[in-house]
Amino acid sequence: MDNNYPLLSKIDTPEDLRKLPVADLPQVCSELRKFLIYSLSENPGHFASSMGAVEITVALHYVLNTPYDRIVWDVGHQAYSHKVLTGRRSVFNTSRKLNGISGFPNPEESEYDAFIAGHASNSISAGLGMAIASRINNDEKRRNVVAVIGDASIGGGLAFEGLNNASINKNNLLIILNDNDMAIDQSVGALGEYMAHINTSASYNKIRYKAYKLLRKLHLIDEKHKDIILRFNNSLKALLTNQQNIFEGLNIRYFGPFDGHDVERIVRVLNDIKDMEGPRILHLRTQKGKGFTAAETNPAVWHAPGKFDPETGERKESVKQNAPLKYQDVFGHSLVELANMNDKLVGVTAAMPSGTSMNIMQSAYPERTFDVGIAEGHAVTFSAGLAKDGLKPFCAIYSTFLQRAYDAIINDVAILNLPVTFCIDRAGLVGEDGVTHQGAFDLAYMRCVPNMTVAAPMNEHWLRNLMYTAQIKNCGPFSIRYPRGNGVLLDWKNEMKEVEIGKGVKLTEGDDIAILSIGHIGNIVADAVEGLKAQGMKVAHYDMVFLKPLDESILYETGSKYKAVITVEDGTVVGGLGTAVSEWYCEHGYNVKVRKIGIPDSFIPHGTVPQLYELCGMDNNSIKDVVLSLINN
Amino acid sequence: MDNNYPLLSKIDTPEDLRKLPVADLPQVCSELRKFLIYSLSENPGHFASSMGAVEITVALHYVLNTPYDRIVWDVGHQAYSHKVLTGRRSVFNTSRKLNGISGFPNPEESEYDAFIAGHASNSISAGLGMAIASRINNDEKRRNVVAVIGDASIGGGLAFEGLNNASINKNNLLIILNDNDMAIDQSVGALGEYMAHINTSASYNKIRYKAYKLLRKLHLIDEKHKDIILRFNNSLKALLTNQQNIFEGLNIRYFGPFDGHDVERIVRVLNDIKDMEGPRILHLRTQKGKGFTAAETNPAVWHAPGKFDPETGERKESVKQNAPLKYQDVFGHSLVELANMNDKLVGVTAAMPSGTSMNIMQSAYPERTFDVGIAEGHAVTFSAGLAKDGLKPFCAIYSTFLQRAYDAIINDVAILNLPVTFCIDRAGLVGEDGVTHQGAFDLAYMRCVPNMTVAAPMNEHWLRNLMYTAQIKNCGPFSIRYPRGNGVLLDWKNEMKEVEIGKGVKLTEGDDIAILSIGHIGNIVADAVEGLKAQGMKVAHYDMVFLKPLDESILYETGSKYKAVITVEDGTVVGGLGTAVSEWYCEHGYNVKVRKIGIPDSFIPHGTVPQLYELCGMDNNSIKDVVLSLINN
Repeated sequence: MDNNYPLLSKIDTPEDLRKLPVADLPQVCSELRKFLIYSLSENPGHFASSMGAVEITVALHYVLNTPYDRIVWDVGHQAYSHKVLTGRRSVFNTSRKLNGISGFPNPEESEYDAFIAGHASNSISAGLGMAIASRINNDEKRRNVVAVIGDASIGGGLAFEGLNNASINKNNLLIILNDNDMAIDQSVGALGEYMAHINTSASYNKIRYKAYKLLRKLHLIDEKHKDIILRFNNSLKALLTNQQNIFEGLNIRYFGPFDGHDVERIVRVLNDIKDMEGPRILHLRTQKGKGFTAAETNPAVWHAPGKFDPETGERKESVKQNAPLKYQDVFGHSLVELANMNDKLVGVTAAMPSGTSMNIMQSAYPERTFDVGIAEGHAVTFSAGLAKDGLKPFCAIYSTFLQRAYDAIINDVAILNLPVTFCIDRAGLVGEDGVTHQGAFDLAYMRCVPNMTVAAPMNEHWLRNLMYTAQIKNCGPFSIRYPRGNGVLLDWKNEMKEVEIGKGVKLTEGDDIAILSIGHIGNIVADAVEGLKAQGMKVAHYDMVFLKPLDESILYETGSKYKAVITVEDGTVVGGLGTAVSEWYCEHGYNVKVRKIGIPDSFIPHGTVPQLYELCGMDNNSIKDVVLSLINN
Repeated sequence: MDNNYPLLSKIDTPEDLRKLPVADLPQVCSELRKFLIYSLSENPGHFASSMGAVEITVALHYVLNTPYDRIVWDVGHQAYSHKVLTGRRSVFNTSRKLNGISGFPNPEESEYDAFIAGHASNSISAGLGMAIASRINNDEKRRNVVAVIGDASIGGGLAFEGLNNASINKNNLLIILNDNDMAIDQSVGALGEYMAHINTSASYNKIRYKAYKLLRKLHLIDEKHKDIILRFNNSLKALLTNQQNIFEGLNIRYFGPFDGHDVERIVRVLNDIKDMEGPRILHLRTQKGKGFTAAETNPAVWHAPGKFDPETGERKESVKQNAPLKYQDVFGHSLVELANMNDKLVGVTAAMPSGTSMNIMQSAYPERTFDVGIAEGHAVTFSAGLAKDGLKPFCAIYSTFLQRAYDAIINDVAILNLPVTFCIDRAGLVGEDGVTHQGAFDLAYMRCVPNMTVAAPMNEHWLRNLMYTAQIKNCGPFSIRYPRGNGVLLDWKNEMKEVEIGKGVKLTEGDDIAILSIGHIGNIVADAVEGLKAQGMKVAHYDMVFLKPLDESILYETGSKYKAVITVEDGTVVGGLGTAVSEWYCEHGYNVKVRKIGIPDSFIPHGTVPQLYELCGMDNNSIKDVVLSLINN
């Protein structure tokens, strides 16, 4: 190991990094890249983003006094080198594994992780809070706070709100725009296009920057005479360019764009600007996947490539023979089938065309498919506008990201009872992405919304039938949740048909006890019931399909017949199926003991999905144990 | 009437307006203002915003072919003249009253109301959806869609997401920026400051606009040669100005600023630009309260002034003698008391310093109080940043507006268990503001968030004790909800003390049945219990105080003792106290019939709070009826 990484192997903390001469930094970067390539080829994770941010990371830890100074990463994809440099090199191979380190920064893991970073666009707001806290705390020593945000994340509404507020109060926030013209997919939005053309002002910025440095060197200006600098800048700008600069329009001093892979230059620039007063933005151009040809060529695929050969770049895709499709792909193909039949159907997604398989619709119907970028609130309100004028939008967003659109769901869709279908992907435990990505809350937060239909298919046929039903009925907002990963049917392509809204199914008869489940986890329940049958136990199993409206006929039946009922759902036990069923029994005077199986009322870390199911007591054995304990009591 | 309003009285639809010569429009505007002044002096509502938007409204309906063309109002405050011009003049005096017209646009009320408008910043996204729907629907006739948005609303993240997407797809959205440099309070954010200085480019815009018109008149350019126009514009701009323009940076053609009170000019401009292709923004400068001196002078107070003398402008404030303070004021004064004791305490609000009484803290501690503008997500994530570095932010936001920050609550605050205190004002039914403002959902959407403490005070002393407890304990996120309007105690200023988290109180003993309530509505319950006592019924009454954690000792006690329990809360019955209590009984095997009183699972219209309580079965009599029916069965 040490032979391969002569410098990196001696860096256990950023202190060690800071002892090196600046001329060594390119070598550190090169070793870091190699380390990432070899680590991630074996232990898959997010690849391309972190490869692109190597120099930024090295320069930041070299110049700043971390962890006293704060680096707030926006989304953690970019932060792998940061983890390697901050004492986690030796455990880096545990990344994203149960009890290992997280794939995202998390202050509970390291003091170097200044903030949580799983959902995009939060770094400016959080960093601004820290910068202002430093002032209010009267920190004796100036504390630099740096938010590192990508060009896609900065297009999110939250990031804009942060930018819009950054200059309102006295603070020293430094924003680093890591601009690689990519989110996971190509980033969209006028801002992205704008940034691509900001280059035209590069000559101006270069001159301005050199002039500024010269004046400072000559002691003609200093921080106390900022106004002079600004006036000087403005005249210079008037002279040299007519380029608009959005950031300066928001009173944030802009520097750049610079080459984000020239580590020595970044160090120089950071040294020059880090102690300036007031909010600043440093625009660095980077390349996603930098340093690994395959990833540079196809950064979207290499966002999270799985295992690969570190020498050849050949991906070792574990294509299971005869495995069912992913739910998202069944969604994607089915959407196109429906679009063929219904010319009012349109697709909307928020920066996740490949993550949700909306790209299948995008290929088939480019004019009827809308990727709005990292802008979930807009995705939903925009869908509401489409629906208001007669269209049937299918809006596909991950469960946790849809949390950003909660007010849009209530205020813009549900009040007007508009026919927007929410296709909630990554609902339930998602596994390796961990705490920020577990889709635990959608059943609970959707159930309390009036007019909302809340459904979850147990398999691909149900998914297709629910989608079919949502676009053919005029039933207002309709949410359909399904998990990450594969379905259960090889023959997924049934003839789609309308289903009765609010109607579940009895899958298994049984006199001893009843299990009510919703969604894909019903397959685990079915296996458990089968296992218990072999042990002589007769367990009834109902697939509720709908959380709202509830199938009351099942509740009357089970309420009358059973002393105990088990509910099983891949969502929080606070406010989901177990809650709804309990409340119905209580309201209708049934004396049934309800035992809820689902995600407990806490935040669930990373691990494989089967490991997390076990951790949460949602696996086959746990379900059987609960049945046995209830029957034996 | 007709003598006072010679023109207005003949306008029953915009068709009638469009028959008038343009020279009559100033007179129409003048009559409209008079109408609004006299109407609102008697039947209070939002005053200043609508007074400022009179000319915009008249011009839009004059030029556009409404309702085929769509006007999407952002927030309804500005839309009173729109209601008057679109067939609702004769029922305007029913505005905001039960069964009367709504104070906000609502498509369920009129086909002229293109979209719901209660929460700020949604008009661009919704309008963009409609503009694109028109294209996909292949509407035979061009349908113009206009979003009218204020300068404060355009600073919200959702509006930015809309702007950022406006130019991505082919559409003809026209955005009208009604810029009065105000939200309800002074608007904040760099964008506002930016717009104030955009004037510097007025001369350029004037020349460009005249040149454009000239060239078009000479048939030298037309819509098909947009590129020429744009190039022309750009050269002109290079020549005349170095003003940055954020909107053009986002690929939206910008026109303005123009005087928003010159109705004839607005008509001319609208005629010139309405049929252009592509997204455009028209910047109009207006004055909030225009045409009524008192309101022009003090627009914040005149946002919703209550009754007043239409001649003198004297406000008829109905100051109740010896009435308790509003909850929000108790909050505001108590926050300052706490800030005196705790130098880590800071206040955060989102464009509602006077609405939440955060202005009391703002006066006392300007450096420790942050009004971030219409940016609820940022308010919460910014609070998380403050809390992460050792401060104790109290973040005061209305219940329905906090829905916009749901992901920030979960991802940025709750995962890290940060000590942010959410002071949720306007929780429960709010009355006249109606469907978009009823604070129905916060108990439900907060309860499913891990680490969150969820509390509601029954009176001012409890409010103060909960606030005290939240800042002294290190218990992670803490939410305290309280309603709009007055408290119940004249002597509100108790000595604040710590309360035990998750501990309720038994207020009344009783053997017949038990009522569990949470929050201010407990006072109505107490009255009902008192009334039932006079009728010989012994009803136990518990104030739960906390929804999460629940006081299990009360649940064991009531579960063992009573056959039936009634829960009462001023929030949706789906997912709140009734739900939590039911689920607890079921899980613990108690056979208790639970009857839930609260906001039903539907959207509640406007009316006075007492009327709405009655409508929802949450008033004294309804509670008594439920008790009687349960006891008699």
